Formats: sequence, structure tokens, C-alpha cells
Amino acid sequence: MRTFETARTDFEQIGPITVARWEQYRIGEDVMPFGAMWYTVPPGGSSARDCHPELELSIVLTGTAHVEIGDTITEVGAGNAFLLNSEEAHIIHNRTADQPVLIFSGYWMPLAGGGSAES
Amino acid sequence: MRTFETARTDFEQIGPITVARWEQYRIGEDVMPFGAMWYTVPPGGSSARDCHPELELSIVLTGTAHVEIGDTITEVGAGNAFLLNSEEAHIIHNRTADQPVLIFSGYWMPLAGGGSAES
Repeated sequence: MRTFETARTDFEQIGPITVARWEQYRIGEDVMPFGAMWYTVPPGGSSARDCHPELELSIVLTGTAHVEIGDTITEVGAGNAFLLNSEEAHIIHNRTADQPVLIFSGYWMPLAGGGSAES
Repeated sequence: MRTFETARTDFEQIGPITVARWEQYRIGEDVMPFGAMWYTVPPGGSSARDCHPELELSIVLTGTAHVEIGDTITEVGAGNAFLLNSEEAHIIHNRTADQPVLIFSGYWMPLAGGGSAES
């Protein structure tokens, strides 16, 4: 077993958010079938608009995320998850005054067969 | 995007723990490269000893898990994660009096190349 602790992980400031990519753990590409990261959105802050070919499963660990996709903003609270489709542009907002949003995110290229997260 | 809320998810009692397998979301096997579940360990409770060929990445969402592997018990608090190797027998304890342990778990068969989570 290996453990991964956010408090012992290097977070990098990227614009308004901090990101800790799991590459730093040197897990090896033949171990996990997806990439992973932690990221935080500070109170009152928002991530830059992001859009990428990878699908992305995000699990909200602390705080409440407001996920903006097109014209829709969806609230996702701590303990819940959201799955982004390939090339689905998204912005993560933290509308609280004092509670950081901490998210675990796993991401992977579309699988053969090309299913959609909406199916 | 799809969202997944623990409060709107069906949990099944399996011995001392409750388990919500993500199959109920009908995401499609061609969407995610791993299986997933939520599970809870009640205060003072422990999971049955579990051992399976899949590697398993677990993220502690609430409470503090004590993960027993062989003769070692490792504390993993909320916001942190642990990665179990293939065929690594494990028991999850909740030593608190009042705080349920809620865990998100993703699992997958060993990849070609056969890396170990310890590498």
C-alpha cells in the first residue's frame, strides 16, 4: 500500500488555483489507468476555463464547487463527484467566503468505443 | 457532465459496512477505465478482510480510516488517499465514536507491464 497526503504534497500555483499533479509520486504509468491530481480553488476564486480531450472524474473533498459548463452552473458539495466529458469546457467556482474547495481529479483519454459520460 | 451525489445513491448493507457500487449509475464500460464505489464504515466498525486481484485507489472523504495490512495499521485522514496493490489483503477500521468513514474507491485489474503500487 501507498498513502498520499495532501499536506505532504507539493502544490503549484497556476493562476488563481493550486494544483498537485500525481506525477510527483512517481507511481509509474503501468500502475494506474488514469492520471490524477489534487487542486484547490480559494474562497471567492475561480479556475481558468479549461477544455481538454481527457474525460475527468472529480471528487469534491472539501467545500462546495460550482461547476460552470456553457450556460449552466451546477453545485457539487463535499463528498460528491462530477464526470466531465472529453472536450467539455469547464470553470470551477468557489463562491464561499472562507472554505477552500479541494478536489481530487482523475483523467484519461477516451476509451475505444468512445462512450459519452452522458450515456 | 454528470454529477453523482452520495445522498441520492443507493447504499447496500454488506456486513458491517454500506456499499454503493457505481454500476447503478449505468455509466457504460466504455467510459471509465476503472470500476468505482462509495462505501462507509460506521463508528467503531470495521470492514471484513478483503483481498482481490484489482488494484484499488481509495480516497477518504469523511472521517479517519485505519487501514490494516498484515501487521501494520496506517491512519488515513479525510482528504487523503491510499493505493492498494493487487491481492493486498486489507481491513478498514473506523476507530472514532461518532464520525462515519466515507470512502470513494476506484479499482482496476493490473495493467499490462504489471507495475506495483510500491514502485
